[in-house]
Amino acid sequence: MSPVLAALGKIFQDESILTEAADLIHYGKDRTDQYEPAPLAIVFPRCVEEVQQVVRLANQIGFRIVPSGGRTGLSGGACATRGEVVVSMERMNRIVDFDPLDRLVRCEAGVLTATLQSFAESKRLFFPIDLASAGSSQIGGNVATNAGGNRAVCYGMLRQWVRGLTVVSGAGEILYLGKGLKKNNTGYDLMQLFIGSEGTLGIICDATLELVSPPNIQVALLGLKAFDQVLELFQYCQEHLRILSFEYCSAAAIEQAQKEISSHFPLEAAAHYVLLEHDGLRRTLEDVLQQWYTRQPDTCAVLASSRRQAIDLKRWRECISTAIASAVPLKCDVAVRPSVLSAFFEDLEKLAEDFADWQLVLFGHIGDGNLHVNWLPGKESGHQQVVSHQRQLLQDRVYELVIKHGGAIAAEHGVGLLKKTFLTSSTDGSIVSLARQVADLLDPNGVLNPGKVYS
Amino acid sequence: MSPVLAALGKIFQDESILTEAADLIHYGKDRTDQYEPAPLAIVFPRCVEEVQQVVRLANQIGFRIVPSGGRTGLSGGACATRGEVVVSMERMNRIVDFDPLDRLVRCEAGVLTATLQSFAESKRLFFPIDLASAGSSQIGGNVATNAGGNRAVCYGMLRQWVRGLTVVSGAGEILYLGKGLKKNNTGYDLMQLFIGSEGTLGIICDATLELVSPPNIQVALLGLKAFDQVLELFQYCQEHLRILSFEYCSAAAIEQAQKEISSHFPLEAAAHYVLLEHDGLRRTLEDVLQQWYTRQPDTCAVLASSRRQAIDLKRWRECISTAIASAVPLKCDVAVRPSVLSAFFEDLEKLAEDFADWQLVLFGHIGDGNLHVNWLPGKESGHQQVVSHQRQLLQDRVYELVIKHGGAIAAEHGVGLLKKTFLTSSTDGSIVSLARQVADLLDPNGVLNPGKVYS
Repeated sequence: MSPVLAALGKIFQDESILTEAADLIHYGKDRTDQYEPAPLAIVFPRCVEEVQQVVRLANQIGFRIVPSGGRTGLSGGACATRGEVVVSMERMNRIVDFDPLDRLVRCEAGVLTATLQSFAESKRLFFPIDLASAGSSQIGGNVATNAGGNRAVCYGMLRQWVRGLTVVSGAGEILYLGKGLKKNNTGYDLMQLFIGSEGTLGIICDATLELVSPPNIQVALLGLKAFDQVLELFQYCQEHLRILSFEYCSAAAIEQAQKEISSHFPLEAAAHYVLLEHDGLRRTLEDVLQQWYTRQPDTCAVLASSRRQAIDLKRWRECISTAIASAVPLKCDVAVRPSVLSAFFEDLEKLAEDFADWQLVLFGHIGDGNLHVNWLPGKESGHQQVVSHQRQLLQDRVYELVIKHGGAIAAEHGVGLLKKTFLTSSTDGSIVSLARQVADLLDPNGVLNPGKVYS
Repeated sequence: MSPVLAALGKIFQDESILTEAADLIHYGKDRTDQYEPAPLAIVFPRCVEEVQQVVRLANQIGFRIVPSGGRTGLSGGACATRGEVVVSMERMNRIVDFDPLDRLVRCEAGVLTATLQSFAESKRLFFPIDLASAGSSQIGGNVATNAGGNRAVCYGMLRQWVRGLTVVSGAGEILYLGKGLKKNNTGYDLMQLFIGSEGTLGIICDATLELVSPPNIQVALLGLKAFDQVLELFQYCQEHLRILSFEYCSAAAIEQAQKEISSHFPLEAAAHYVLLEHDGLRRTLEDVLQQWYTRQPDTCAVLASSRRQAIDLKRWRECISTAIASAVPLKCDVAVRPSVLSAFFEDLEKLAEDFADWQLVLFGHIGDGNLHVNWLPGKESGHQQVVSHQRQLLQDRVYELVIKHGGAIAAEHGVGLLKKTFLTSSTDGSIVSLARQVADLLDPNGVLNPGKVYS
């Protein structure tokens, strides 16, 4: 038995260490599916102290750790490819504390997003972050990646709702950060450093999150002729509605979605579609859209008149990722400011001409500038190696366009393994250097999530 | 001429350096009025590069800098007491950029809060942070102190609206942080470090801030018999209204306010008062409060029926600070979670019995747990030295209670000089040590705001 396994055996009982091949594969990868999983073992701590023990051990005897949540990431941030010990948080899955006056809930890292959503609902409250992966993503991972999702246009990123964290730093210290307070300016807010650091600075053990009043969600699906109309509609709705989400689907994206959905698409054909959620009265949504039609009479639209119909309408946006998965698309999760979306869109269309073998399938959270630029390889693209080479070229070109338009190459899915080369080449040297020094402070021996983000 | 002044003369023209005694006093202090101002000079940069030059010079020839905004702080964070060079940002006061689709405005650090508020209004938008000091506080200072104010219960702290910063670090590097994006997970969000760091890590040169749709503000003033009813009302309103602010005034606070206001107080006497702002229809506010009266019939209330009346009602809360200023109160800006406010309140009442010479005047942003615990020294308290000693004792006792209830000794006014002893003694050693290491990274020679916060 390896000395690392022997030492882990002193912390964890047998049922809390897995080393079978199938488990190593299962826990060694996320949804990127392009990195070969090769962890040494998986351990399942039950409490903060066990997390601390394994981090301290890693510092003492020199192994590396991949913190692991629901592994729903798309950037390889949770992949273990080099004999690391995966620290899965899935058995730390209790909702520890809740107060209705404070509207604060304290969750262990392994609580599923969907579990928290249901819990909030049972208290007549609402967890403001809406993720497609709610059924499998975990709160710890959400915090570690500063999750965004569909409703960031209204509620911002998860960072905005984190009021406290318990973290084990890479140095093995337990840090209690934040105090569940909305107003707290007692020194630097070091808690912010861990949010979105993708498990490279510390392991999130629990998070205290603020919940909100449940919105009164009204849903509409609209079809528009030109991309500029989409942005006009967005500005118009910003002025007149309380937008919860403003999701974009290209015609190509809806065409793909049709593969997953047996019923007919409820609108006549258009070039661009918007799935809109408004918080308020259906009457208001109707009135505002009625006004919009007088400006843009060629808009087609359908408003959900029941909860069932709202779910059906939203499925057209939600199932796109699943619909294209089998084609193994090149996925680029990027963001630009809404005001440059139009120019960015034009550049993407030009790029699509240069890569005629690839089909551009564009969708995403356009209300916050976050586009999911997906490219499907054509069947005629030829040899595997050619496709792979083209994929790399195309990805670089997309990222270059993002940089040209002042955007972010990682909007909501983080950097992980996938984007780290581009991260360091596209970020100011002084900022990269600072970030690395911060990592050295918190994880001096580099035991946490090796090879990810800046390392 | 001192070598420092001679060197500054090479960067700044004569009209951009002040050394007259009256100027040194004016720019050397904030609103705490208890630290003797003694800066060496005041300089007024006009651009980021001039800020960088003065920081680099400080590193080269060894002087220290106090970054300076509107100096409306109450913790001494902007006081210059030891021959520092004050870098006043007041001449960098342009609104540089605005986009209506992005709802982003980029302001230089010296823009007044009120100027930004008016600018937002002119664009039919709204700056969500509402500060009593809006007429004199500046955006740079607001960011450096992570300003809170009346509407944090709805909009959170300023941190939530910062989408980009230009900062000159203590090492003299210009850092462009954030990209005006709502979703951006490209590496660690180092921008967060500077927000609320009180000028100890870098000098904020400009900030890109997000604006929101203007709320439809409805105002009510309510009187209640018991403190617990205040909290019940808060929970009730959270459930049924969109609360913009939920401000508390004790009977003693309203009694003080009456000194400033010639008209009669519009409610019958009660023990506790709440000034409430709701975003929505007046009708909704009326209906919700009507329901509340059926539960708590001894509540008295008045709803503003005009903008004028709303201003008049709000003045009862706003003028409390001014009304008590001449008594030189001990001011404790603290926060606890709303759920422990009741127990904290009881402890404060007990403490008031122990310090019978002092009058407790309690008010603040109770909706976010932030209480301004003010104590007025009695006229009979005796000798200056006794008062001063008692003041220290009383302050320590308040902070101890805050710690006991898991709260923050600095809620919205920061640590500055005033609370640094208590900050380090009440914070985990590992966190203090980390914070100091972060400061060493960004300001290796300790040139920025010496003696403040952790130093």
